[in-house]
Amino acid sequence: MAGPPTFDAEFRARFRDLLEWRRDVRKFRRDPLPDGTLERLLQLACLAPSVGLSEPWRFVVVREAARRDKIKSCFKACNAAALNGQAGDRASLYARLKLEGLDDAPCHLAVFADRSTTQGHGLGRLTMPEMIEYSAVLAMHTLWLVARAEGIGVGWLSILEPTAVTTILDTPPDWTFIGYFCIGYPVEECDAPALQREGWESRRPPPDTVFYR
Amino acid sequence: MAGPPTFDAEFRARFRDLLEWRRDVRKFRRDPLPDGTLERLLQLACLAPSVGLSEPWRFVVVREAARRDKIKSCFKACNAAALNGQAGDRASLYARLKLEGLDDAPCHLAVFADRSTTQGHGLGRLTMPEMIEYSAVLAMHTLWLVARAEGIGVGWLSILEPTAVTTILDTPPDWTFIGYFCIGYPVEECDAPALQREGWESRRPPPDTVFYR
Repeated sequence: MAGPPTFDAEFRARFRDLLEWRRDVRKFRRDPLPDGTLERLLQLACLAPSVGLSEPWRFVVVREAARRDKIKSCFKACNAAALNGQAGDRASLYARLKLEGLDDAPCHLAVFADRSTTQGHGLGRLTMPEMIEYSAVLAMHTLWLVARAEGIGVGWLSILEPTAVTTILDTPPDWTFIGYFCIGYPVEECDAPALQREGWESRRPPPDTVFYR
Repeated sequence: MAGPPTFDAEFRARFRDLLEWRRDVRKFRRDPLPDGTLERLLQLACLAPSVGLSEPWRFVVVREAARRDKIKSCFKACNAAALNGQAGDRASLYARLKLEGLDDAPCHLAVFADRSTTQGHGLGRLTMPEMIEYSAVLAMHTLWLVARAEGIGVGWLSILEPTAVTTILDTPPDWTFIGYFCIGYPVEECDAPALQREGWESRRPPPDTVFYR
Protein backbone atom coordinates (compact mmCIF):
# COMPACT_ATOMS: atom_id res chain seq x y z
CA MET A 1 0.00 0.00 0.00
CA ALA A 2 1.26 3.41 -1.01
CA GLY A 3 -0.50 5.24 1.85
CA PRO A 4 -2.86 8.18 1.65
CA PRO A 5 -2.86 10.04 -1.65
CA THR A 6 -2.16 13.73 -1.86
CA PHE A 7 -3.74 15.86 -4.54
CA ASP A 8 -1.57 18.44 -6.25
CA ALA A 9 -2.46 21.85 -7.67
CA GLU A 10 -2.81 20.38 -11.15
CA PHE A 11 -5.41 17.85 -9.96
CA ARG A 12 -7.31 20.50 -8.05
CA ALA A 13 -7.39 22.78 -11.09
CA ARG A 14 -8.75 19.95 -13.23
CA PHE A 15 -11.30 19.11 -10.57
CA ARG A 16 -12.44 22.71 -10.63
CA ASP A 17 -12.78 22.42 -14.43
CA LEU A 18 -14.92 19.35 -13.87
CA LEU A 19 -17.23 21.23 -11.51
CA GLU A 20 -17.43 24.18 -13.89
CA TRP A 21 -18.17 22.05 -16.95
CA ARG A 22 -20.53 19.57 -15.32
CA ARG A 23 -23.95 20.32 -16.75
CA ASP A 24 -27.53 19.24 -16.29
CA VAL A 25 -27.77 17.79 -19.78
CA ARG A 26 -30.97 17.80 -21.86
CA LYS A 27 -29.62 17.22 -25.37
CA PHE A 28 -28.13 13.80 -25.88
CA ARG A 29 -26.65 11.89 -28.77
CA ARG A 30 -28.38 8.57 -29.31
CA ASP A 31 -25.32 6.31 -29.34
CA PRO A 32 -25.28 3.93 -26.41
CA LEU A 33 -22.73 3.88 -23.63
CA PRO A 34 -20.07 1.17 -24.11
CA ASP A 35 -20.87 -2.13 -22.43
CA GLY A 36 -20.17 -2.10 -18.73
CA THR A 37 -19.97 1.69 -18.48
CA LEU A 38 -23.13 2.20 -16.46
CA GLU A 39 -22.17 -0.60 -14.10
CA ARG A 40 -18.77 1.01 -13.54
CA LEU A 41 -20.38 4.39 -12.86
CA LEU A 42 -22.79 2.81 -10.39
CA GLN A 43 -19.92 1.11 -8.60
CA LEU A 44 -18.17 4.46 -8.17
CA ALA A 45 -21.42 6.04 -6.99
CA CYS A 46 -21.42 3.56 -4.12
CA LEU A 47 -18.24 5.18 -2.75
CA ALA A 48 -20.46 8.08 -1.64
CA PRO A 49 -20.96 8.78 2.05
CA SER A 50 -24.15 7.50 3.67
CA VAL A 51 -25.68 8.00 7.07
CA GLY A 52 -24.49 5.25 9.42
CA LEU A 53 -23.02 3.44 6.39
CA SER A 54 -26.60 2.57 5.49
CA GLU A 55 -26.01 2.78 1.71
CA PRO A 56 -29.75 3.35 1.13
CA TRP A 57 -29.43 4.23 -2.55
CA ARG A 58 -31.44 2.03 -4.91
CA PHE A 59 -30.73 2.35 -8.62
CA VAL A 60 -33.39 1.28 -11.11
CA VAL A 61 -32.16 0.97 -14.69
CA VAL A 62 -35.19 1.52 -16.89
CA ARG A 63 -34.89 -0.45 -20.11
CA GLU A 64 -38.42 -1.40 -21.13
CA ALA A 65 -39.92 0.84 -23.80
CA ALA A 66 -43.40 0.67 -22.27
CA ARG A 67 -42.15 1.98 -18.93
CA ARG A 68 -40.11 4.71 -20.61
CA ASP A 69 -43.22 5.78 -22.52
CA LYS A 70 -45.20 6.04 -19.30
CA ILE A 71 -42.45 8.14 -17.71
CA LYS A 72 -42.58 10.42 -20.74
CA SER A 73 -46.35 10.78 -20.38
CA CYS A 74 -45.95 11.53 -16.69
CA PHE A 75 -43.41 14.23 -17.49
CA LYS A 76 -45.70 15.76 -20.11
CA ALA A 77 -48.60 16.00 -17.68
CA CYS A 78 -46.45 17.43 -14.87
CA ASN A 79 -44.76 19.87 -17.22
CA ALA A 80 -48.09 21.11 -18.56
CA ALA A 81 -49.21 21.78 -14.98
CA ALA A 82 -45.94 23.59 -14.27
CA LEU A 83 -46.31 25.70 -17.40
CA ASN A 84 -49.83 26.54 -16.30
CA GLY A 85 -48.43 27.93 -13.05
CA GLN A 86 -46.08 30.35 -14.79
CA ALA A 87 -47.42 33.83 -15.52
CA GLY A 88 -47.12 36.07 -18.59
CA ASP A 89 -43.71 36.32 -20.22
CA ARG A 90 -42.40 33.62 -17.91
CA ALA A 91 -44.90 31.16 -19.38
CA SER A 92 -43.75 31.70 -22.94
CA LEU A 93 -40.12 31.44 -21.89
CA TYR A 94 -40.90 28.28 -19.88
CA ALA A 95 -42.61 26.74 -22.89
CA ARG A 96 -39.43 27.16 -24.93
CA LEU A 97 -37.14 25.43 -22.41
CA LYS A 98 -36.00 21.88 -23.06
CA LEU A 99 -36.32 20.24 -19.67
CA GLU A 100 -35.68 16.56 -20.37
CA GLY A 101 -33.74 14.29 -22.68
CA LEU A 102 -36.03 11.26 -22.49
CA ASP A 103 -36.26 10.61 -26.23
CA ASP A 104 -32.57 10.55 -27.03
CA ALA A 105 -30.66 9.54 -23.91
CA PRO A 106 -29.65 5.89 -24.29
CA CYS A 107 -29.72 5.24 -20.57
CA HIS A 108 -32.54 5.94 -18.12
CA LEU A 109 -31.89 5.62 -14.40
CA ALA A 110 -34.39 6.16 -11.60
CA VAL A 111 -32.91 6.65 -8.15
CA PHE A 112 -34.64 5.87 -4.87
CA ALA A 113 -33.77 5.89 -1.16
CA ASP A 114 -34.80 2.93 0.97
CA ARG A 115 -36.20 4.16 4.29
CA SER A 116 -36.84 0.59 5.37
CA THR A 117 -33.22 -0.48 5.32
CA THR A 118 -31.80 -1.78 8.58
CA GLN A 119 -28.25 -1.40 7.29
CA GLY A 120 -26.51 1.15 9.50
CA HIS A 121 -28.66 0.15 12.51
CA GLY A 122 -30.40 3.50 12.54
CA LEU A 123 -27.26 5.47 13.33
CA GLY A 124 -27.65 9.19 12.58
CA ARG A 125 -31.28 8.87 11.54
CA LEU A 126 -33.27 9.31 14.75
CA THR A 127 -33.70 13.09 14.63
CA MET A 128 -33.17 13.37 10.87
CA PRO A 129 -34.76 10.44 9.01
CA GLU A 130 -34.32 12.44 5.80
CA MET A 131 -30.62 11.55 5.97
CA ILE A 132 -31.64 8.44 4.03
CA GLU A 133 -32.77 10.56 1.09
CA TYR A 134 -29.74 12.82 1.39
CA SER A 135 -27.45 9.79 1.22
CA ALA A 136 -29.01 8.71 -2.07
CA VAL A 137 -28.55 12.25 -3.39
CA LEU A 138 -24.84 12.03 -2.50
CA ALA A 139 -24.48 8.80 -4.45
CA MET A 140 -26.20 10.22 -7.48
CA HIS A 141 -24.03 13.33 -7.36
CA THR A 142 -20.97 11.10 -7.25
CA LEU A 143 -22.21 9.27 -10.35
CA TRP A 144 -22.84 12.61 -12.05
CA LEU A 145 -19.26 13.77 -11.50
CA VAL A 146 -17.53 10.53 -12.48
CA ALA A 147 -19.71 10.38 -15.59
CA ARG A 148 -18.67 13.89 -16.59
CA ALA A 149 -15.03 12.92 -16.12
CA GLU A 150 -15.64 10.31 -18.84
CA GLY A 151 -17.38 12.81 -21.12
CA ILE A 152 -20.80 11.39 -20.27
CA GLY A 153 -23.68 13.74 -19.53
CA VAL A 154 -26.36 13.40 -16.87
CA GLY A 155 -29.69 15.22 -16.70
CA TRP A 156 -31.80 15.25 -13.53
CA LEU A 157 -35.53 15.24 -14.12
CA SER A 158 -37.74 16.23 -11.18
CA ILE A 159 -40.82 17.22 -13.18
CA LEU A 160 -42.50 13.91 -12.38
CA GLU A 161 -45.06 12.81 -9.82
CA PRO A 162 -43.19 10.53 -7.35
CA THR A 163 -46.19 8.30 -6.65
CA ALA A 164 -46.73 7.83 -10.39
CA VAL A 165 -43.07 6.89 -10.88
CA THR A 166 -43.33 4.32 -8.09
CA THR A 167 -46.31 2.76 -9.86
CA ILE A 168 -44.76 2.87 -13.33
CA LEU A 169 -41.54 1.24 -12.14
CA ASP A 170 -43.20 -1.11 -9.64
CA THR A 171 -40.88 -0.21 -6.78
CA PRO A 172 -41.47 -0.86 -3.06
CA PRO A 173 -43.59 1.70 -1.20
CA ASP A 174 -40.78 2.30 1.30
CA TRP A 175 -38.52 3.65 -1.41
CA THR A 176 -38.54 7.44 -1.72
CA PHE A 177 -38.20 8.61 -5.31
CA ILE A 178 -35.15 10.89 -5.60
CA GLY A 179 -34.98 11.63 -9.31
CA TYR A 180 -35.04 10.30 -12.85
CA PHE A 181 -31.77 10.60 -14.71
CA CYS A 182 -31.06 10.63 -18.43
CA ILE A 183 -27.51 9.53 -19.16
CA GLY A 184 -25.57 9.57 -22.43
CA TYR A 185 -23.13 11.57 -24.51
CA PRO A 186 -24.07 15.26 -24.63
CA VAL A 187 -24.61 17.05 -27.94
CA GLU A 188 -22.66 20.06 -26.65
CA GLU A 189 -20.37 21.10 -23.82
CA CYS A 190 -20.68 24.39 -22.03
CA ASP A 191 -19.37 26.04 -18.88
CA ALA A 192 -22.62 27.90 -18.16
CA PRO A 193 -25.94 26.37 -17.12
CA ALA A 194 -28.54 26.11 -19.92
CA LEU A 195 -31.08 27.99 -17.78
CA GLN A 196 -28.66 30.90 -17.61
CA ARG A 197 -27.96 30.86 -21.35
CA GLU A 198 -31.68 30.80 -22.06
CA GLY A 199 -32.40 33.75 -19.78
CA TRP A 200 -34.41 31.85 -17.18
CA GLU A 201 -32.20 32.53 -14.17
CA SER A 202 -28.64 33.52 -13.44
CA ARG A 203 -26.16 32.60 -10.77
CA ARG A 204 -25.73 34.87 -7.78
CA PRO A 205 -22.45 35.79 -6.07
CA PRO A 206 -21.49 32.97 -3.67
CA PRO A 207 -20.96 35.34 -0.69
CA ASP A 208 -24.69 36.14 -0.80
CA THR A 209 -25.32 32.64 0.55
CA VAL A 210 -22.89 32.84 3.47
CA PHE A 211 -23.88 34.04 6.95
CA TYR A 212 -22.03 34.34 10.24
CA ARG A 213 -23.14 33.60 13.77
CA MET B 1 -10.88 30.21 -24.36
CA ALA B 2 -9.43 26.74 -24.65
CA GLY B 3 -12.80 25.03 -25.13
CA PRO B 4 -14.27 22.14 -23.16
CA PRO B 5 -11.79 20.23 -21.02
CA THR B 6 -11.24 16.53 -21.38
CA PHE B 7 -10.23 14.39 -18.44
CA ASP B 8 -7.62 11.75 -18.96
CA ALA B 9 -7.17 8.36 -17.34
CA GLU B 10 -4.69 9.81 -14.86
CA PHE B 11 -7.20 12.40 -13.65
CA ARG B 12 -9.95 9.80 -13.40
CA ALA B 13 -7.72 7.50 -11.37
CA ARG B 14 -6.89 10.35 -8.99
CA PHE B 15 -10.56 11.26 -8.72
CA ARG B 16 -11.30 7.68 -7.79
CA ASP B 17 -8.62 7.95 -5.09
CA LEU B 18 -10.34 11.07 -3.83
CA LEU B 19 -13.68 9.25 -3.57
CA GLU B 20 -12.05 6.28 -1.85
CA TRP B 21 -10.14 8.41 0.66
CA ARG B 22 -12.84 10.97 1.40
CA ARG B 23 -13.96 10.27 4.94
CA ASP B 24 -16.59 11.43 7.39
CA VAL B 25 -14.03 12.84 9.79
CA ARG B 26 -14.51 12.89 13.58
CA LYS B 27 -10.94 13.40 14.78
CA PHE B 28 -9.51 16.79 13.95
CA ARG B 29 -6.32 18.64 14.64
CA ARG B 30 -6.95 21.98 16.26
CA ASP B 31 -4.90 24.18 13.93
CA PRO B 32 -7.07 26.60 11.99
CA LEU B 33 -7.56 26.61 8.25
CA PRO B 34 -5.42 29.25 6.50
CA ASP B 35 -7.14 32.60 6.00
CA GLY B 36 -9.54 32.58 3.08
CA THR B 37 -9.68 28.79 2.82
CA LEU B 38 -13.27 28.37 3.95
CA GLU B 39 -14.41 31.18 1.66
CA ARG B 40 -12.68 29.48 -1.29
CA LEU B 41 -14.31 26.15 -0.45
CA LEU B 42 -17.71 27.82 -0.20
CA GLN B 43 -17.21 29.46 -3.57
CA LEU B 44 -16.48 26.09 -5.16
CA ALA B 45 -19.51 24.59 -3.41
CA CYS B 46 -21.65 27.09 -5.28
CA LEU B 47 -20.69 25.42 -8.57
CA ALA B 48 -23.04 22.59 -7.55
CA PRO B 49 -26.20 21.94 -9.53
CA SER B 50 -29.45 23.29 -8.14
CA VAL B 51 -33.06 22.87 -9.14
CA GLY B 52 -34.04 25.60 -11.59
CA LEU B 53 -30.74 27.35 -10.80
CA SER B 54 -32.33 28.29 -7.47
CA GLU B 55 -29.05 28.03 -5.50
CA PRO B 56 -31.03 27.54 -2.26
CA TRP B 57 -28.01 26.62 -0.12
CA ARG B 58 -27.45 28.83 2.91
CA PHE B 59 -24.16 28.46 4.75
CA VAL B 60 -23.94 29.57 8.35
CA VAL B 61 -20.40 29.82 9.70
CA VAL B 62 -20.68 29.30 13.46
CA ARG B 63 -17.97 31.23 15.27
CA GLU B 64 -19.44 32.25 18.62
CA ALA B 65 -18.41 30.03 21.51
CA ALA B 66 -21.81 30.29 23.18
CA ARG B 67 -23.59 28.98 20.11
CA ARG B 68 -21.05 26.19 19.66
CA ASP B 69 -21.61 25.18 23.27
CA LYS B 70 -25.35 24.98 22.72
CA ILE B 71 -24.86 22.85 19.62
CA LYS B 72 -22.66 20.54 21.68
CA SER B 73 -25.36 20.26 24.35
CA CYS B 74 -27.95 19.55 21.68
CA PHE B 75 -25.75 16.78 20.28
CA LYS B 76 -25.25 15.26 23.73
CA ALA B 77 -29.00 15.11 24.39
CA CYS B 78 -29.79 13.66 20.96
CA ASN B 79 -26.96 11.17 21.19
CA ALA B 80 -28.10 9.99 24.61
CA ALA B 81 -31.57 9.38 23.17
CA ALA B 82 -30.06 7.51 20.23
CA LEU B 83 -27.94 5.37 22.54
CA ASN B 84 -31.07 4.62 24.53
CA GLY B 85 -32.68 3.23 21.38
CA GLN B 86 -29.89 0.74 20.74
CA ALA B 87 -30.25 -2.73 22.23
CA GLY B 88 -27.76 -4.98 24.04
CA ASP B 89 -24.33 -5.32 22.46
CA ARG B 90 -25.19 -2.63 19.96
CA ALA B 91 -25.62 -0.13 22.78
CA SER B 92 -22.16 -0.72 24.22
CA LEU B 93 -20.65 -0.53 20.74
CA TYR B 94 -22.61 2.65 20.02
CA ALA B 95 -21.37 4.21 23.26
CA ARG B 96 -17.78 3.70 22.13
CA LEU B 97 -18.21 5.41 18.75
CA LYS B 98 -16.90 8.92 18.26
CA LEU B 99 -19.66 10.59 16.30
CA GLU B 100 -18.63 14.24 16.23
CA GLY B 101 -15.58 16.45 16.19
CA LEU B 102 -17.13 19.52 17.78
CA ASP B 103 -14.40 20.14 20.36
CA ASP B 104 -11.42 20.11 18.06
CA ALA B 105 -12.57 21.12 14.57
CA PRO B 106 -11.54 24.75 14.01
CA CYS B 107 -14.41 25.44 11.67
CA HIS B 108 -18.13 24.81 12.26
CA LEU B 109 -20.55 25.17 9.36
CA ALA B 110 -24.31 24.70 9.48
CA VAL B 111 -26.02 24.21 6.15
CA PHE B 112 -29.62 25.05 5.35
CA ALA B 113 -31.90 25.05 2.31
CA ASP B 114 -34.14 28.05 1.71
CA ARG B 115 -37.60 26.88 0.65
CA SER B 116 -38.77 30.48 0.41
CA THR B 117 -36.38 31.48 -2.33
CA THR B 118 -37.93 32.78 -5.54
CA GLN B 119 -34.68 32.32 -7.41
CA GLY B 120 -35.33 29.76 -10.14
CA HIS B 121 -38.98 30.83 -10.43
CA GLY B 122 -40.20 27.51 -9.09
CA LEU B 123 -38.83 25.49 -11.98
CA GLY B 124 -38.58 21.78 -11.18
CA ARG B 125 -40.12 22.15 -7.73
CA LEU B 126 -43.86 21.78 -8.27
CA THR B 127 -44.11 18.01 -7.82
CA MET B 128 -40.91 17.68 -5.80
CA PRO B 129 -40.43 20.62 -3.42
CA GLU B 130 -37.74 18.57 -1.68
CA MET B 131 -35.46 19.39 -4.62
CA ILE B 132 -34.56 22.50 -2.62
CA GLU B 133 -33.07 20.38 0.15
CA TYR B 134 -31.41 18.05 -2.35
CA SER B 135 -29.74 21.04 -4.02
CA ALA B 136 -28.21 22.12 -0.71
CA VAL B 137 -26.97 18.56 -0.19
CA LEU B 138 -25.27 18.71 -3.60
CA ALA B 139 -23.48 21.93 -2.66
CA MET B 140 -22.30 20.50 0.63
CA HIS B 141 -21.06 17.34 -1.08
CA THR B 142 -19.12 19.52 -3.52
CA LEU B 143 -17.50 21.32 -0.60
CA TRP B 144 -16.67 17.99 1.01
CA LEU B 145 -14.83 16.76 -2.08
CA VAL B 146 -12.89 19.96 -2.82
CA ALA B 147 -11.91 20.12 0.86
CA ARG B 148 -10.56 16.57 0.74
CA ALA B 149 -8.55 17.48 -2.37
CA GLU B 150 -6.81 20.07 -0.19
CA GLY B 151 -6.22 17.60 2.63
CA ILE B 152 -9.05 19.09 4.70
CA GLY B 153 -11.51 16.81 6.44
CA VAL B 154 -15.27 17.23 6.79
CA GLY B 155 -17.57 15.50 9.26
CA TRP B 156 -21.37 15.53 8.83
CA LEU B 157 -23.30 15.62 12.08
CA SER B 158 -27.00 14.70 11.89
CA ILE B 159 -27.45 13.76 15.54
CA LEU B 160 -29.09 17.10 16.28
CA GLU B 161 -32.67 18.29 16.58
CA PRO B 162 -33.31 20.54 13.55
CA THR B 163 -35.73 22.85 15.36
CA ALA B 164 -33.21 23.31 18.18
CA VAL B 165 -30.45 24.16 15.68
CA THR B 166 -32.70 26.76 14.07
CA THR B 167 -33.22 28.36 17.47
CA ILE B 168 -29.58 28.19 18.50
CA LEU B 169 -28.40 29.76 15.27
CA ASP B 170 -31.32 32.16 14.91
CA THR B 171 -32.03 31.25 11.31
CA PRO B 172 -35.26 31.95 9.36
CA PRO B 173 -38.09 29.43 9.82
CA ASP B 174 -38.22 28.81 6.06
CA TRP B 175 -34.73 27.39 6.08
CA THR B 176 -34.56 23.59 6.33
CA PHE B 177 -31.63 22.39 8.40
CA ILE B 178 -29.49 20.05 6.27
CA GLY B 179 -26.55 19.27 8.52
CA TYR B 180 -23.85 20.56 10.83
CA PHE B 181 -20.33 20.18 9.54
CA CYS B 182 -17.04 20.10 11.37
CA ILE B 183 -14.17 21.12 9.10
CA GLY B 184 -10.43 21.00 9.72
CA TYR B 185 -7.31 18.93 9.21
CA PRO B 186 -7.88 15.26 10.05
CA VAL B 187 -5.75 13.43 12.59
CA GLU B 188 -5.55 10.40 10.30
CA GLU B 189 -6.27 9.35 6.73
CA CYS B 190 -7.92 6.07 5.84
CA ASP B 191 -9.52 4.43 2.83
CA ALA B 192 -12.19 2.64 4.90
CA PRO B 193 -15.08 4.26 6.77
CA ALA B 194 -14.60 4.55 10.53
CA LEU B 195 -17.91 2.75 11.15
CA GLN B 196 -16.56 -0.21 9.20
CA ARG B 197 -13.25 -0.21 11.07
CA GLU B 198 -15.07 -0.09 14.38
CA GLY B 199 -17.35 -3.00 13.50
CA TRP B 200 -20.58 -1.03 13.36
CA GLU B 201 -21.48 -1.73 9.74
CA SER B 202 -19.80 -2.78 6.53
CA ARG B 203 -20.22 -1.90 2.91
CA ARG B 204 -22.26 -4.14 0.67
CA PRO B 205 -21.50 -5.12 -2.92
CA PRO B 206 -22.66 -2.29 -5.22
CA PRO B 207 -24.64 -4.64 -7.53
CA ASP B 208 -26.98 -5.37 -4.59
CA THR B 209 -28.35 -1.84 -5.00
CA VAL B 210 -29.04 -2.06 -8.76
CA PHE B 211 -32.36 -3.22 -10.21
CA TYR B 212 -33.70 -3.52 -13.72
CA ARG B 213 -37.11 -2.74 -15.16
